[in-house]
This record gives sequence, structure tokens and C-alpha cells, in this order.
Amino acid sequence: MRVGGEGSEAVRFPLKESVGAGMRFAYRALARELQARLQPYDIPMGMWYFLRALWEEDGLSQKELSVRAGFMEPTTVEQLRAMERRGLVERRRSEIDRRKWHVHLTPVGLSLRDELLDHAAEVNRIATEGLSAGEIGFMRMAMARVRANLAAYSDNPNIGDID
Amino acid sequence: MRVGGEGSEAVRFPLKESVGAGMRFAYRALARELQARLQPYDIPMGMWYFLRALWEEDGLSQKELSVRAGFMEPTTVEQLRAMERRGLVERRRSEIDRRKWHVHLTPVGLSLRDELLDHAAEVNRIATEGLSAGEIGFMRMAMARVRANLAAYSDNPNIGDID
Repeated sequence: MRVGGEGSEAVRFPLKESVGAGMRFAYRALARELQARLQPYDIPMGMWYFLRALWEEDGLSQKELSVRAGFMEPTTVEQLRAMERRGLVERRRSEIDRRKWHVHLTPVGLSLRDELLDHAAEVNRIATEGLSAGEIGFMRMAMARVRANLAAYSDNPNIGDID
Repeated sequence: MRVGGEGSEAVRFPLKESVGAGMRFAYRALARELQARLQPYDIPMGMWYFLRALWEEDGLSQKELSVRAGFMEPTTVEQLRAMERRGLVERRRSEIDRRKWHVHLTPVGLSLRDELLDHAAEVNRIATEGLSAGEIGFMRMAMARVRANLAAYSDNPNIGDID
């Protein structure tokens, strides 16, 4: 006779104990709120992480940008073209290596920075309400650890990238 | 004169301090690894959370299932139809309320449970390597808090749902 009926396996690894499931719900909630705030500016989430990276360091190469924003390179190229059409960025060939493209914010792309970063900071503030600075710091550290563990396991440093 | 040059605003809320960005990378890494393990079974991530919920409680109504799995109802209906065509679930009309549909695992859907839950538990184990049980527990609690904060703020208990 099999010990434990239907459901006993699920209890061995209940959804409530899954870090992945918890992370999915939390991340989706955060992304949803940010998305709602970016909508009036007509900035889809696909553009958000590229802008975010360029606001921190303008003129990144296309390749560096794809790593920082966490997207595969073909997706990055496609997204940057859309951003160029929108007048948010400009791609310029490297003077040193003509095969390389560098991405620069236009005045329009730069002008969005302060307002949109304020929204992002506000969404993060709402999300972490009731948690101490130490707890938030631990959470960030733990998430970095999760990514690093999976990157090491899969031997892919960019395992979280979106294609 | 404006104090602080280009970049100073970004430093005010650097990407490294963003809980949202950290969560995105960690969650994507986890999802990617799980996805790779589900592929040989031909189970896309879109089906995963429905199976996961039904393995814990078979016979949920379509509505309950959409809440547990974290998808909007139209997406749930579409996904369940695909799962029905694959022979993983069966939808049956409620005996009590003929407008309600209940979703039941087929023997095929149930037979996948043990192996796939083992994969999920293993991915979670890899992801959390080096973190103590207490630290993992805190991380789960913190993520539940993030979702609850955003749900309360937006007055939408299912804010993390995917449409």
C-alpha cells in the first residue's frame, strides 16, 4: 500500500514553501505597479531597464547594455531600434572599433530621468513598507545570492536574461 | 547652477538598491532553470502554476484556480483549454451551480506530479544554497509582504496576476 494519499507529495513541497512562487507574485506585483506609472509616458517595461541603465551610465556599448538590462542581445537590438524611433536614444558606431555600437540618451531620453526614477523609488518604497533598512538589505543580498547560485549551477552568468 | 551632474539622480536610486530589479533577475533565473527542466515533459511555464495548484487541491473551480495560479480569468480559461486538449485536465460543470466549472486532473496530469515536484524542489534547493532555513523563511515572508503592500496600495488583492 502506498503511504499517503493524493496531496501528500504536494505537501512535501507546498506552494507556500516555494521561494520561486513567492518571488513570482512579488515581482509581478511590483512590475504591475511600475507599469501603470510608466504608461502615461508611453514607456513599456521592455524599454524601462535600458533607460535605467543608460541613466546610470550613458554611452554603454550595445553588448554591455544588454548585460546590464538583462536581455539577450537580439532583443536588445530590436528594443534599441524602437527606442531610437521614439527619439529616446541614439546609436553611434564606436570610433575605436567600428563593429561596436554605443548607445546614447537623447535630450528627450534624459529628460524623463528624474520623474521616472521618482516613480521607481516610490514603487520600491511602497513595496518595502514595514521592512527595516537591514531587512531590505538582506532581501537584496538573498536575491543576488539566488541569481548567483543559479548562474553557477547552469554555468551561465546571465541566466536571468530575457530573450 | 544645478548641483550634481548627470548621474547624480541615478545615484539617488541606483539600480543596485532596487528591490524590484533584484527580484526580476532572481525570479528570471529561477524560472529559466525550471523551464529547462519542464521542457522534456513539454510543459510550458504557462501550465506549470495550474498543475501546481491542482496537485495541491484537485477539483478547484476555474475562478479559484485563476487566483491560486495568479492568472487573470480569460488567460486561465484559454490555458485550461490547452491543458484539456493535452489530456492533462478535465473541466466539469458544477452539480450545484451550472455556471461554474471545476477543474480535475486526469491520470496523465496526476502522473506527472512526483517527478515535476522533485524538479521544482531541486531548483529551489539550488537557488537557496548557502542560505539558512531562517533566512529562506525571512525571504519568503518579505516577498509576501511586498506583494501585500502593493495589493493594499492598489486596492487589488490579485495585483501580481498575469493577463
